[in-house]
Amino acid sequence: MIDKVTLAEKFARFSDHWSPKIVGELNGQLVKLVKFQGAFIWHHHDTEDELFFVHRGRFRMEFRDRTVELSAGDFLIVPRGVEHRPMADEEAEVVLFEPATVLNTGNVRDARTIETLEHL
Amino acid sequence: MIDKVTLAEKFARFSDHWSPKIVGELNGQLVKLVKFQGAFIWHHHDTEDELFFVHRGRFRMEFRDRTVELSAGDFLIVPRGVEHRPMADEEAEVVLFEPATVLNTGNVRDARTIETLEHL
Repeated sequence: MIDKVTLAEKFARFSDHWSPKIVGELNGQLVKLVKFQGAFIWHHHDTEDELFFVHRGRFRMEFRDRTVELSAGDFLIVPRGVEHRPMADEEAEVVLFEPATVLNTGNVRDARTIETLEHL
Repeated sequence: MIDKVTLAEKFARFSDHWSPKIVGELNGQLVKLVKFQGAFIWHHHDTEDELFFVHRGRFRMEFRDRTVELSAGDFLIVPRGVEHRPMADEEAEVVLFEPATVLNTGNVRDARTIETLEHL
């Protein structure tokens, strides 16, 4: 069944932070929703580029040499290999678009690593 | 240079309809912006799934057996092989996410086919 996904309705279904949920799949890529709040960990992905689109709120993507500030309606592509750390002073709703192989913490495994993602 | 893309700013740069513009690339996939108005043509893509995300306005995706209505904040994934026709009563701003190989008119070539897309 081909059906639309309403972002606001899907974001209303969860409240945990830094835990991406799968809401779509195409061409080996996943569409995920995640809520950011506070600071994540520094990491990179060896072989995958990642897209971050802000649905609601704002966050900063920190790189080792600079910071990019994003707000609702902005997106950012982080190329493979580039170390980054998302940081949100207040809760932000973010859409991720990335290959199905991406692990949320990239090259790092720690308490925030999520091996199996929930589908919404 | 890694920099953000602000959708509203990019959409303000063009006014033609049914002519996707490239605004991002990752993992062999392209992010494109397009303005819909009126009816497009029936077509399908043999090997590519397509994602349509509504940034502003609304449109209908017609399938041979049903229609899905989308408005701002909704997305729809059309699987490969499925015939579809986008239709917008008023202008809609839409973000496409699809493989770099996608031709806008899919299996059909006509006056609306665009072989080489502009980068914004």
